[in-house]
Amino acid sequence: MLSTKGYAAKAADAKLEPFEFERREVGANDVLIEIEYCGVCHTDIHQTRNEWGNSMFPMVPGHEIVGRVAKVGTDVTKFKEGDFAGVGCFVDSCGDCENCRQDVEQFCQVHCAQTYNSTEMDEKTPTYGGYSNRIVVKENYALKISDSENLAAIAPLLCAGITTYSPLRKFNIGEGSNVGIVGLGGLGHMGVKFAVSLGADVTVFSTSPSKEKDAYNLGAHHFVVSKNEEEMKSLAGQYDFILDCVSAAHDLSVYLNLLKLNGAMCLVGVPEKPAPVHAFALIQNNRSLAGSGIGGIKETQAMLDYCAENNITSDVEIIPIRNIEEAYERTIKGDVRYRFVIDMKSLNNGE
Amino acid sequence: MLSTKGYAAKAADAKLEPFEFERREVGANDVLIEIEYCGVCHTDIHQTRNEWGNSMFPMVPGHEIVGRVAKVGTDVTKFKEGDFAGVGCFVDSCGDCENCRQDVEQFCQVHCAQTYNSTEMDEKTPTYGGYSNRIVVKENYALKISDSENLAAIAPLLCAGITTYSPLRKFNIGEGSNVGIVGLGGLGHMGVKFAVSLGADVTVFSTSPSKEKDAYNLGAHHFVVSKNEEEMKSLAGQYDFILDCVSAAHDLSVYLNLLKLNGAMCLVGVPEKPAPVHAFALIQNNRSLAGSGIGGIKETQAMLDYCAENNITSDVEIIPIRNIEEAYERTIKGDVRYRFVIDMKSLNNGE
Repeated sequence: MLSTKGYAAKAADAKLEPFEFERREVGANDVLIEIEYCGVCHTDIHQTRNEWGNSMFPMVPGHEIVGRVAKVGTDVTKFKEGDFAGVGCFVDSCGDCENCRQDVEQFCQVHCAQTYNSTEMDEKTPTYGGYSNRIVVKENYALKISDSENLAAIAPLLCAGITTYSPLRKFNIGEGSNVGIVGLGGLGHMGVKFAVSLGADVTVFSTSPSKEKDAYNLGAHHFVVSKNEEEMKSLAGQYDFILDCVSAAHDLSVYLNLLKLNGAMCLVGVPEKPAPVHAFALIQNNRSLAGSGIGGIKETQAMLDYCAENNITSDVEIIPIRNIEEAYERTIKGDVRYRFVIDMKSLNNGE
Repeated sequence: MLSTKGYAAKAADAKLEPFEFERREVGANDVLIEIEYCGVCHTDIHQTRNEWGNSMFPMVPGHEIVGRVAKVGTDVTKFKEGDFAGVGCFVDSCGDCENCRQDVEQFCQVHCAQTYNSTEMDEKTPTYGGYSNRIVVKENYALKISDSENLAAIAPLLCAGITTYSPLRKFNIGEGSNVGIVGLGGLGHMGVKFAVSLGADVTVFSTSPSKEKDAYNLGAHHFVVSKNEEEMKSLAGQYDFILDCVSAAHDLSVYLNLLKLNGAMCLVGVPEKPAPVHAFALIQNNRSLAGSGIGGIKETQAMLDYCAENNITSDVEIIPIRNIEEAYERTIKGDVRYRFVIDMKSLNNGE
């Protein structure tokens, strides 16, 4: 077994603290990745604090992992030692069910082994995430990273990136699309970058007037303070697609009303409580409200390749791991532009 | 002006009673239809009782209208005297906006003149519906009825028919589709007939075990009592499409969970209050929740032609108009299999 250093929460009300544990030896199809950076996703906070009621402790969070391949198993063909590699939100699945065969392993009908707060395919062995110095993962569940220049800024692509890229692709966003992005946080800022890159006309909706300058800097064409009821009403029926990146409770009908004929709004944020939806808001203009969660390995790789070709990365603030609790508090307050990324050297150095 | 006999509600708390009013003279592009039958839609009840807060009195309800053309205007080419014709939920629109040009006049961006409880394009002259002996309508907003054998059973196609046909077509339901129909009432029974006719494998979900026999008689392949939690859980992830025909408040997540990858549920019933939807239920399997309302003239004509070719009509109970209040009470209780239709001779005869 491989001794591993990380940070873990021992209980829902405990702070993250240093934690030593073991990873499995590198199997024939495995790669060992020495982790260089790991992004801080709002999901990490929800789960370490058991806000979704399904937490398993001790928990080593982190599913926006990038690093360098330090060892490959005897049957590995996709990676060689020294390659850069990433790991996203899951590390295994059955590979054989209807969903896995359609390349959406995240919805595996047998068991999707999440990167942390989950179990391996035996449904017993706990998985530990990327707030750690190394990870062992099957090569088919690791992603190739061709651009090693901005490794820290690439880390958030593994969750925030794919979560926003996938629905924009699924709804065929491109030249001529009128797209709204609701909420300018970790997800929203990636949504803006992708939608702009795909050629859409992009409006950012935010409750914070202070985000206007950032919205334009990210490439958005319009900025609307969503509290401005008159402006919101004047935009009724104008949008082809709205990507809703907000995790706080909010009124969905206000945004549904902005959709034109056959328009769709897609939720990628997960508010704690169900949101009320009035049938009229959907029936008018034959609208739809969709949901989307991360992406399969194939699409995640396509997203990483798209980002490398189009110079898209996340805007990040790099922190040492000892500052993780402060980063959580600032993430909750929306005080980060736009993603914290842990420099994992800070763990090895005991900084 | 053409003197017209009908039944009207004078106020939200008033019963429907005989009412005389005037229709316009037949213009160059108009047809005069002597109404033979008019279906009783739940919307008639909502609106005569001002349950949606937008009622205009006196109100002559009725938007499932069939009859015989008695006179045509000088420029009319689509109809001749003696033809059978229908009128659905609207009688005019601008014809020129983005939505009208896409053949969804029901979502006209200028003004959709609803058949009743609305105004003509001048947004002043009130419209009066099909609980009356005649109607004058522009030929382009009247439908051709080729099958005059079952005129009473055709009437409900003008609303209940198109409302269920349109989303089944939009979501490409056909051979190999696994379809659920929620609620076996006026809409639901048409949804079953269409989905079966299109080649789908059809499951009816109902709270009433007593509807099982009817469901099978209508052609459904499976019947599930939706209160049976275990059976509902066992069907998770099985359906391509669910048509939700229920107007009463109900938990949407229970049905969303039945959808497979990229599955969609479409609301055609309109509960009075917004329904809570949890983002997780949509994100899992990349599901969507859509709405759909009636259809444009072109699609309504296609639906009527499809019905004529495939011998599809509504199951109806014919009533004289003096029984309308009793029919409303029975409709509210779900005590009708499956649509009341008023025989308009009962009005002319003073029955």
